[in-house]
Amino acid sequence: MKDVFATRESEVRSYSRTWPVVFDKAQGSWLYDEHGKGYLDFFAGAGALNYGHNNPLLKRKLIDYIERDGVHHGLDQATSARGEFLHALDETLLEPRGLNYKVQFPGPTGTNSVEAALKLARKITGRESIISFTNAFHGMTLGSLSVTGNSMKRGGAGIPLVHATPMPYDNYFDGQVDDFLYFERLLADSGSGLNAPAAVIVETLQGEGGINDSRAEWLRNLSELCERHGILLIVDDVQMGCGRTGPFFSFEQAGIEPDMVCLSKSIGGYGSPLALTLIKPEHDVWEPGEHNGTFRGNNPAFVTGAEALRQYWSDDALRDSTLAKGERVARTLHELGAEYPGLVSKGRGLARGLGFAEPEMAGKVSKAAFDRGMILETAGPQDEVVKIMPPLTVTDEEVEQGVEILRDSVRAVFA
Amino acid sequence: MKDVFATRESEVRSYSRTWPVVFDKAQGSWLYDEHGKGYLDFFAGAGALNYGHNNPLLKRKLIDYIERDGVHHGLDQATSARGEFLHALDETLLEPRGLNYKVQFPGPTGTNSVEAALKLARKITGRESIISFTNAFHGMTLGSLSVTGNSMKRGGAGIPLVHATPMPYDNYFDGQVDDFLYFERLLADSGSGLNAPAAVIVETLQGEGGINDSRAEWLRNLSELCERHGILLIVDDVQMGCGRTGPFFSFEQAGIEPDMVCLSKSIGGYGSPLALTLIKPEHDVWEPGEHNGTFRGNNPAFVTGAEALRQYWSDDALRDSTLAKGERVARTLHELGAEYPGLVSKGRGLARGLGFAEPEMAGKVSKAAFDRGMILETAGPQDEVVKIMPPLTVTDEEVEQGVEILRDSVRAVFA
Amino acid sequence: MKDVFATRESEVRSYSRTWPVVFDKAQGSWLYDEHGKGYLDFFAGAGALNYGHNNPLLKRKLIDYIERDGVHHGLDQATSARGEFLHALDETLLEPRGLNYKVQFPGPTGTNSVEAALKLARKITGRESIISFTNAFHGMTLGSLSVTGNSMKRGGAGIPLVHATPMPYDNYFDGQVDDFLYFERLLADSGSGLNAPAAVIVETLQGEGGINDSRAEWLRNLSELCERHGILLIVDDVQMGCGRTGPFFSFEQAGIEPDMVCLSKSIGGYGSPLALTLIKPEHDVWEPGEHNGTFRGNNPAFVTGAEALRQYWSDDALRDSTLAKGERVARTLHELGAEYPGLVSKGRGLARGLGFAEPEMAGKVSKAAFDRGMILETAGPQDEVVKIMPPLTVTDEEVEQGVEILRDSVRAVFA
Amino acid sequence: MKDVFATRESEVRSYSRTWPVVFDKAQGSWLYDEHGKGYLDFFAGAGALNYGHNNPLLKRKLIDYIERDGVHHGLDQATSARGEFLHALDETLLEPRGLNYKVQFPGPTGTNSVEAALKLARKITGRESIISFTNAFHGMTLGSLSVTGNSMKRGGAGIPLVHATPMPYDNYFDGQVDDFLYFERLLADSGSGLNAPAAVIVETLQGEGGINDSRAEWLRNLSELCERHGILLIVDDVQMGCGRTGPFFSFEQAGIEPDMVCLSKSIGGYGSPLALTLIKPEHDVWEPGEHNGTFRGNNPAFVTGAEALRQYWSDDALRDSTLAKGERVARTLHELGAEYPGLVSKGRGLARGLGFAEPEMAGKVSKAAFDRGMILETAGPQDEVVKIMPPLTVTDEEVEQGVEILRDSVRAVFA
Repeated sequence: MKDVFATRESEVRSYSRTWPVVFDKAQGSWLYDEHGKGYLDFFAGAGALNYGHNNPLLKRKLIDYIERDGVHHGLDQATSARGEFLHALDETLLEPRGLNYKVQFPGPTGTNSVEAALKLARKITGRESIISFTNAFHGMTLGSLSVTGNSMKRGGAGIPLVHATPMPYDNYFDGQVDDFLYFERLLADSGSGLNAPAAVIVETLQGEGGINDSRAEWLRNLSELCERHGILLIVDDVQMGCGRTGPFFSFEQAGIEPDMVCLSKSIGGYGSPLALTLIKPEHDVWEPGEHNGTFRGNNPAFVTGAEALRQYWSDDALRDSTLAKGERVARTLHELGAEYPGLVSKGRGLARGLGFAEPEMAGKVSKAAFDRGMILETAGPQDEVVKIMPPLTVTDEEVEQGVEILRDSVRAVFA
Repeated sequence: MKDVFATRESEVRSYSRTWPVVFDKAQGSWLYDEHGKGYLDFFAGAGALNYGHNNPLLKRKLIDYIERDGVHHGLDQATSARGEFLHALDETLLEPRGLNYKVQFPGPTGTNSVEAALKLARKITGRESIISFTNAFHGMTLGSLSVTGNSMKRGGAGIPLVHATPMPYDNYFDGQVDDFLYFERLLADSGSGLNAPAAVIVETLQGEGGINDSRAEWLRNLSELCERHGILLIVDDVQMGCGRTGPFFSFEQAGIEPDMVCLSKSIGGYGSPLALTLIKPEHDVWEPGEHNGTFRGNNPAFVTGAEALRQYWSDDALRDSTLAKGERVARTLHELGAEYPGLVSKGRGLARGLGFAEPEMAGKVSKAAFDRGMILETAGPQDEVVKIMPPLTVTDEEVEQGVEILRDSVRAVFA
Repeated sequence: MKDVFATRESEVRSYSRTWPVVFDKAQGSWLYDEHGKGYLDFFAGAGALNYGHNNPLLKRKLIDYIERDGVHHGLDQATSARGEFLHALDETLLEPRGLNYKVQFPGPTGTNSVEAALKLARKITGRESIISFTNAFHGMTLGSLSVTGNSMKRGGAGIPLVHATPMPYDNYFDGQVDDFLYFERLLADSGSGLNAPAAVIVETLQGEGGINDSRAEWLRNLSELCERHGILLIVDDVQMGCGRTGPFFSFEQAGIEPDMVCLSKSIGGYGSPLALTLIKPEHDVWEPGEHNGTFRGNNPAFVTGAEALRQYWSDDALRDSTLAKGERVARTLHELGAEYPGLVSKGRGLARGLGFAEPEMAGKVSKAAFDRGMILETAGPQDEVVKIMPPLTVTDEEVEQGVEILRDSVRAVFA
Repeated sequence: MKDVFATRESEVRSYSRTWPVVFDKAQGSWLYDEHGKGYLDFFAGAGALNYGHNNPLLKRKLIDYIERDGVHHGLDQATSARGEFLHALDETLLEPRGLNYKVQFPGPTGTNSVEAALKLARKITGRESIISFTNAFHGMTLGSLSVTGNSMKRGGAGIPLVHATPMPYDNYFDGQVDDFLYFERLLADSGSGLNAPAAVIVETLQGEGGINDSRAEWLRNLSELCERHGILLIVDDVQMGCGRTGPFFSFEQAGIEPDMVCLSKSIGGYGSPLALTLIKPEHDVWEPGEHNGTFRGNNPAFVTGAEALRQYWSDDALRDSTLAKGERVARTLHELGAEYPGLVSKGRGLARGLGFAEPEMAGKVSKAAFDRGMILETAGPQDEVVKIMPPLTVTDEEVEQGVEILRDSVRAVFA
């Protein structure tokens, strides 16, 4: 079976090289290859599987919906499933948090959500320039790629990427420079050469960039800066939303209210393509149909997405367990940091990372873990961070098992 | 139920305004609203439902796959479902046609496929400029939007769209100008000011642009022109592929072999998000991971997509019935054209259109059809064309029913 | 003396390669090299020397001004010389023609004038896109280069040139296509993909592009098209203004009134750097200082420029003699066209050209003429046209001499 | 006389508003209005009149050249005057300093020189992006404007300015941040989102930006940074070259050798339009004619420029007197700074500035000085700096006179 990937798939394929097996089944925190061998999945579809693989609570709803011939594909037609999803969003997320957002379904994946947000921000302000951050990752389509930092991925555009200026992310200079000193100064100085920005787009915790966390205070200051200068604030919560850091939205702990929020990955509940752009009502100046797309209405994802919201976000249990499990992981990361100089514990909630001074070590640890039956991705500009992102539904036993494999793998690599 | 769409969804929503009901179930050529009222669907998810709603041949496979906990979300990991899909593609599409393409899964929707093709064309050639055609539609993300003609949608970008030059589509000047006269002359003249193009991107039949067909001869000449000038030819078969015009690929009748082909919409079989970029092997110069995305591996769509290929493309039956049904529709369109001056029959296969001299008439006919229980979209720069795109699996009876409703609707509007 | 050019000047040098002598003195239609050898100059500084080299009528004024320590360099300060120039412009050019333009001094050379016009057009309309024409030449700075056709010169930019779309110049298709068919159709069609243009920039007779003339009717239709669509019309009269085609402005015969006019080259009278942008008062929306530059006030050029206007444009004598001499040149060109198949007579007034079917012949004729003591440039995308542009003050005897050398040179090359 | 400026000149006019008189004659450090009133000129054509108005040592050469009908206008033809200028450049500037540069004449004004340098840097490196500095000023044509900081002037472009990223100039953060911390970090980090730069363009002392000086150490570090990262270093010495800061090149004191140097303003000696781009031989990869322009060969400016080089740069006298006079000016500035809190002495050589905490004070001082018979410009993003730039040939008495008028004007404004 492996042959067909090498012979038929484009050279662009990537994870099938990292984990050279053919996966067949999956359940909870486990992936199984075609020979039935299980792998503990601490990658979770890069954040698309926060509720685990083929979550039984959602599976029944999904099959029932398909069985009863519920609308499967629906563009942006009104359907019962779409309506249910909007209701669930209202009741479990927006109302309890006192948030008021209009919902756009911009297409089925995170980059669609980012593109819609950037377009709308430019339309609202009449400005073109966007401020992004060092090591940001927002997607591969041209608009999103312009605000993405990775030079290899930027190079793939084949044209000069413009209209975006990177600013230093929190702690980019290890505390040597005051927060926003540069940004504020450029904004205040009419001779700075900085094009007036339409919006700032930010991840509150950078996943692909290397599990770089930002402080609540930094986010609050960023939010205030934006308000002071009439700049829209877009939080890209595609990877860090849906409870990855504990609370549903990754920005909740900072107490800010972004002008727009991009959601995707786990929002569909079951790993199916779905994306949302949340827009403050006063900014919802779209013309009907000004942005469209074929797969805006992936109705089975509405069904599982709504059920996930009701199952997991009607109370604080998931949030609390995520925080607790995150602390458990962090403990091991700190121990490894104490054991091996140059190792750094990074992250928040269940978005954790182990940074290595020698970048190639991270890849070796990932490989060692795979040899031990565990899926771990690397991240960061030099792939120098091992990313630890189990499903939020991971059991305590699985967490223990995972951190032990990680510890073994690190020891093996340093042995 | 309708309230939640008005109160919670963004103003950008569109089809839920055109058809102000809440759809609940669907089967074959029929959509049913929440009160159980049926609508004959001659829109078919804008080409995403070529095999009909909730096709029973595919449904069982889908449910079985979900029941057995097959991998649901898989990034670009190798999975059995992905492998099966590639095999099916090979056996039913590529080998029988003597085609050799590498397959990229660029993300789940058509615009991802177009973005990947444009990026790759620029990388291969080291040029930036793309030639698109008048009234082209290729998607809403920034790269795809640059090659899309519609001025309202272009305006949504909020920044000047560059690196693309529109050329006249086939018959744009009603035969007054020789094909490619302008394009050839600009290419031949080193003083013309035309930036040397990396690629031409073309739909062989423009759907959103108003069901504008191109002749096989025109496509062949375009292909030869591209070859002569070292320009890559990209066919966007997102809407017109998967048998919409009769053969699987819309360019088969012209006998050309594009350098890249964009597929999406019905490629997943069941209306689920999936997209492919087919690339001639010599052009597959991607670095691993140079283009990525969360939902490249929508595994249930691989399952239904593979089954659809095997069920419908192992022989010529679907192609032949599509052509026959298309002729049946065309007959009524011609009759209407004879009955009402200014009405024009357009299209090929089951991508048909009825053009109106007074643009607003098309919208009125669409509304009249809806009142009569039928879903019909409009298209064209002024929404002046009624688009007739039933599922390819539509029955002969349904075709009869559909053309009669259309005829009644036209008559009612002109009464 | 020649060594220093090869050793010290950049490889970009050009005319010093074409005419490999060192010029020392000049008078009227004659250039003299350092050994005193005279060359009949039918190039005239590419149109910067319409009143001949070191014109005696202007020379005295210039020396007097320098002798009396008149302000030499004046930024955009008010000076008597600047005032005199504006008065002369008013009295000799604007008032007699019933034209009302505000005058901007945008910097000392043609490209500054074009850049100012493009900036202002974009500011006025809020649009970015400019329509230029095939084989246009407007200058080497980035804005002007974007609307210039020549691919080698465009390539020199090192970045993709955007925001401009080339349209076919008059007779680009040898009468096969109706004028403006393409342009009008793209403008009328909201799905064409043409960005709405801020302005059209046009030379009424393309010099660098190969002495391509446009018909008065074509210009009038262009002007009407612009008015109908709210597009500003900019005439670049840098090379063809100042009487080169007969009347002072090259567009006079068409009876149009452009929104902006770019002037430079001979406007300073004596070959000194000076440029103007004429702007219809209603379009003069510049903020003070929004466009500036060090050499906007080249005062000696104001002195000679004003004197040239008074000497040559207070009556119709120069215009009439230019037209007559132009006809005399054209007679020989037609005779050559009759004598040698493939030779074409081109141009108007004293902007004349002899086109060759085999491009390299033009360069050979230029070289043969130089061997016979005459300066002739080539033009056109393949340098396939010999450009005949003597000073307008050339004597009848010199014209006879010039056309005979040209005839001899052509015969020598074809012998 | 003043009427014609208001009625006929564009609203863009600027200095004729600041100094509402009509100047007629000029000599040395003095401008005279049409009524014979003298004004001490401490502005010197924004650096174009370093050798004073109508310098007698140059005037005779200029008149002789015109009298003898030396070639006046010469495109880029070889002429004796051009050759003499190149020789003088060699003998007085390049050889004594051990510098080896090829000379390009890119057009007559500073912005032509900058455009040529940027084009060439992009051609050499195959990269598009340029690093500029906060408060940089490089010119008004589109390429130069992209690297210029001033937001009002940038806004004049009417299109988004791209391909340039501003970095903090020396001391931008008042010593709070290490030099180049930000720049180095972004370059070192492949995930930073900074497009790899083709070149850095820098003024060693920013004139229009507000007389902001940079330290020799900062420049050396910048030069080393560029070398380390394969980035070309362009010094824009248009305003600060030609001895303005003491030595001929403003970067001499730092001991660096830029890859390219832009010169204009005083390089022609007499205030006539002339510009040069100096290019290290290994970077001179232009094709013949790849960049051109009508006024590349302003021959009278070659004559006065060559004579200025021989008269003033054959020994160190001018450099030494400039430094001495600069110190004299600085003394008064420091005294004023001591007298009035918030006043800051800025600059180097005879490029001096007096900065005000309340920006509007600078304009008031300029006006008060004008009322007292002295010309002083303001600079800086808020026009908060009074610029003191007399001709370098200013006498000691005139310096005394000038600083006294300045002192009086400051006192009057604060009274």
